[in-house]
Amino acid sequence: MADAITSRETDYSQWYQDVIRHAKLAEHSPVRGCMIIRPNGYAIWENMQAALDKMFKDTGHQNAYFPIFIPQSFLAREAAHVDGFAKECAVVTHSRLIVDDEKGLIVDPDSRLEENLIVRPTSETIVWDTYSRWIQSWRDLPILINSWNNVVRWEMRTRLFLRTMEFLWQEGHTAHATREEAMEETLQMLDIYATFAEEFMAVPVIKGVKTASERFAGAVETYCIEAMMQDGKSLQAGTSHFLGQNFAKAFNCQFQNKNNEQEYVWATSWGVSTRLIGALIMVHSDDQGLVLPPRLAPTQVVLVPIYRNDEDRDRVLTEARQIVGDLLEAGIRAHLDAREAYRPGWKFNEYEVQGVPIRLALGPRDLKNGTIELARRDTREKEGVPRDGLTKRIESVLFDIQQSLFEKACAFRDSKTTSVDSYDDFKTVLEENGGFVLAHWDGTEETEAQIKKETKATIRCIPLDPIDADDSGVDIISGAPSAGRVYFARSY
Amino acid sequence: MADAITSRETDYSQWYQDVIRHAKLAEHSPVRGCMIIRPNGYAIWENMQAALDKMFKDTGHQNAYFPIFIPQSFLAREAAHVDGFAKECAVVTHSRLIVDDEKGLIVDPDSRLEENLIVRPTSETIVWDTYSRWIQSWRDLPILINSWNNVVRWEMRTRLFLRTMEFLWQEGHTAHATREEAMEETLQMLDIYATFAEEFMAVPVIKGVKTASERFAGAVETYCIEAMMQDGKSLQAGTSHFLGQNFAKAFNCQFQNKNNEQEYVWATSWGVSTRLIGALIMVHSDDQGLVLPPRLAPTQVVLVPIYRNDEDRDRVLTEARQIVGDLLEAGIRAHLDAREAYRPGWKFNEYEVQGVPIRLALGPRDLKNGTIELARRDTREKEGVPRDGLTKRIESVLFDIQQSLFEKACAFRDSKTTSVDSYDDFKTVLEENGGFVLAHWDGTEETEAQIKKETKATIRCIPLDPIDADDSGVDIISGAPSAGRVYFARSY
Repeated sequence: MADAITSRETDYSQWYQDVIRHAKLAEHSPVRGCMIIRPNGYAIWENMQAALDKMFKDTGHQNAYFPIFIPQSFLAREAAHVDGFAKECAVVTHSRLIVDDEKGLIVDPDSRLEENLIVRPTSETIVWDTYSRWIQSWRDLPILINSWNNVVRWEMRTRLFLRTMEFLWQEGHTAHATREEAMEETLQMLDIYATFAEEFMAVPVIKGVKTASERFAGAVETYCIEAMMQDGKSLQAGTSHFLGQNFAKAFNCQFQNKNNEQEYVWATSWGVSTRLIGALIMVHSDDQGLVLPPRLAPTQVVLVPIYRNDEDRDRVLTEARQIVGDLLEAGIRAHLDAREAYRPGWKFNEYEVQGVPIRLALGPRDLKNGTIELARRDTREKEGVPRDGLTKRIESVLFDIQQSLFEKACAFRDSKTTSVDSYDDFKTVLEENGGFVLAHWDGTEETEAQIKKETKATIRCIPLDPIDADDSGVDIISGAPSAGRVYFARSY
Repeated sequence: MADAITSRETDYSQWYQDVIRHAKLAEHSPVRGCMIIRPNGYAIWENMQAALDKMFKDTGHQNAYFPIFIPQSFLAREAAHVDGFAKECAVVTHSRLIVDDEKGLIVDPDSRLEENLIVRPTSETIVWDTYSRWIQSWRDLPILINSWNNVVRWEMRTRLFLRTMEFLWQEGHTAHATREEAMEETLQMLDIYATFAEEFMAVPVIKGVKTASERFAGAVETYCIEAMMQDGKSLQAGTSHFLGQNFAKAFNCQFQNKNNEQEYVWATSWGVSTRLIGALIMVHSDDQGLVLPPRLAPTQVVLVPIYRNDEDRDRVLTEARQIVGDLLEAGIRAHLDAREAYRPGWKFNEYEVQGVPIRLALGPRDLKNGTIELARRDTREKEGVPRDGLTKRIESVLFDIQQSLFEKACAFRDSKTTSVDSYDDFKTVLEENGGFVLAHWDGTEETEAQIKKETKATIRCIPLDPIDADDSGVDIISGAPSAGRVYFARSY
């Protein structure tokens, strides 16, 4: 590729797009707002899916599939829900195209649907209509279902992975006999998301609860994990909603409890999406391109063979195949790039841009010396390492990269987290350092709205873990009492 | 469940629906033609996906994702393609709902899209628009991409799994430098589908090529695998299309070959869908419910503990956990159903209806005798087997069930396959025995159409493997020369 990656300092937004383009992760499609996820990007999503799916199943969830179309009338059943989604949805109104002599291909007016269908922006309505048929007794509870699918929200300002009209995600929908059990589930799933973010993505997150204004349309409480990007903006990386009995009431879903009384069912829903790939890029990548944590990297180790003549070629490739074979056997996702159409230097650059955690290079001199060159993508350090014990060494370096990325991200986030006690300080910190600003808030929508209007910062969350042991104080604007500091930030 | 499963003899179509309902595989959704795939059904799909995905990757394919929406103008680019799909598609025309004071929630007329979007019925158009940007040189070829997604075709007469408005599938789309390579790919994928059907689904299939009238809209040749259902109807279980240069021409996708000449790219596409679950049900299940081949069964072995008092309970459960632990360790999908809310007899029935291949029952007497009861779902035979060596025994029985189901299905298909040499015999066989009727055909659309009109039988395929060593003959209607027998059948 002739053009270089824009540096983060020059233009962060352009840098993000350049990394995606150079690493061949995704691109815009001819339909505005929809993205094409290329094999390199989709392979990351597959690894995310595998890890999350295992965690869901280990906690008793099963996968299922609900239809892509929601009858328009369903959306209207839950008042807050329709408010949240009616303004941005894809509406199917007809079922046929015909050829018009003058205009060419047009929608056939005779195929107008009796009821409009909405391409699902989320599935609570169709799920709770279904659960109302499945649930009669306490014996039918809990229902613990997840679905991997695609959803559509009509976004005007889109950005690859972070905000797209169509995105891929999972949505969990669970049904419970008691409020307590539903709340436990909500928090369990939040914990699973936090664990996934930190242990697989190497992205530290704050767990918290959203304010009313940022709550999911139809939820009683929305819990979230928030991550800090390299430009100091926050990104909501996953949400887990306690829905109370809102959807059960809207779809008349009751069960007979052990005392033979009819009760409405308690609900949760929770989701993470391909947006996580955006977070992954924005947290770890650098001006040379993508940087991937080993646990999610589709290729963890690539070996580039180096030779000048046929005799060297055979010897190098024989040894290279042995090395890669050993790595694969040890469960490491290793790849030998023996393509002849590309030169080693081109390959080095390609794998750097694509974020492969470890690149090995093996040449005739290495064969003689019993060594191999190992380059780490995260630090961009190269060293000759002994051929003996290579697999163990690589296991250890992969582990170290995963750890280092997490620690670096933690340190960065900490450097971008500031407690303030006045609105002036708040504004100064936000302008000069960005990041999370921890400030006291009186709990009213008024001060929240004023701060948002004046600074573009929103309350990302009210943290679940209190920030200080004794964290009482007063709101930075109203001076009214506050129960504790909350996380403010500008966000994606 | 109070109601019983209708027998196949009484009403085959009702039997099919009953099996699906009792085994909790899927149900109709409020949106006509869309289905809800329940956890029991989706788990089968997940096993199918895992097996197929591995075969795709082992042959060099990568997964990617293309948008759900196709601009209307794209459909129109390939003439045969638009003919095939314009008559049955979901058309998105608006992007917003608003509340009207009189009518309630309505589509916002101001949100009319500039160009209609079609919910993908298949993705050739958007894929080839994309490939035209990705491909410049022979170095960019081949592209071997698969996508797991959902598609919509506006079907009026739907049937769970077999024919639904929305279905889940995979669609492979490959790009090649030569006709030969594309044809090799087409046939390779057909072979993969046949292998999957026979080795995983235990469903024998005929590999063949479709006649022009049954060809995919836009293909040069459509290859298929055809399976025989228990009612003697054929079901197309998978297709692999050689697309020639049709889509490359429609989307102007050319590459520079090694001689520096511009050439159009050669294409294939291939897919199987949740329809396979319908085939699986129709081939193996019986009047007691679902029968699943072990390789695709979500649960391969279930253990039901039996006890009357707490002391027995503890002893039985301890042993049961040991047994199931051993099975899991051996890689067998085993489950201990220790639920107290249900009695053993209820559980036996439940797992029979759900098609679990092996059901074990363990009681106090078994503990004393060192035995356990093993019931096979396929033969419904029960026997006491020794506790010693149980895991090995179960591995062997699972293997045997897989084989037996395949052999039984082969024998059934053979009993439903008849060669005829006159149109009278053709009609008699079709009425009295159904199944595949092998007859000579002159290769014209006229005789094909006449037979379809008069008997509802279509040419399922022209087999790749010739039926007889010397299979020349004359068309059963026209008397014109035929190059070989073809498979006729009524079909789903």
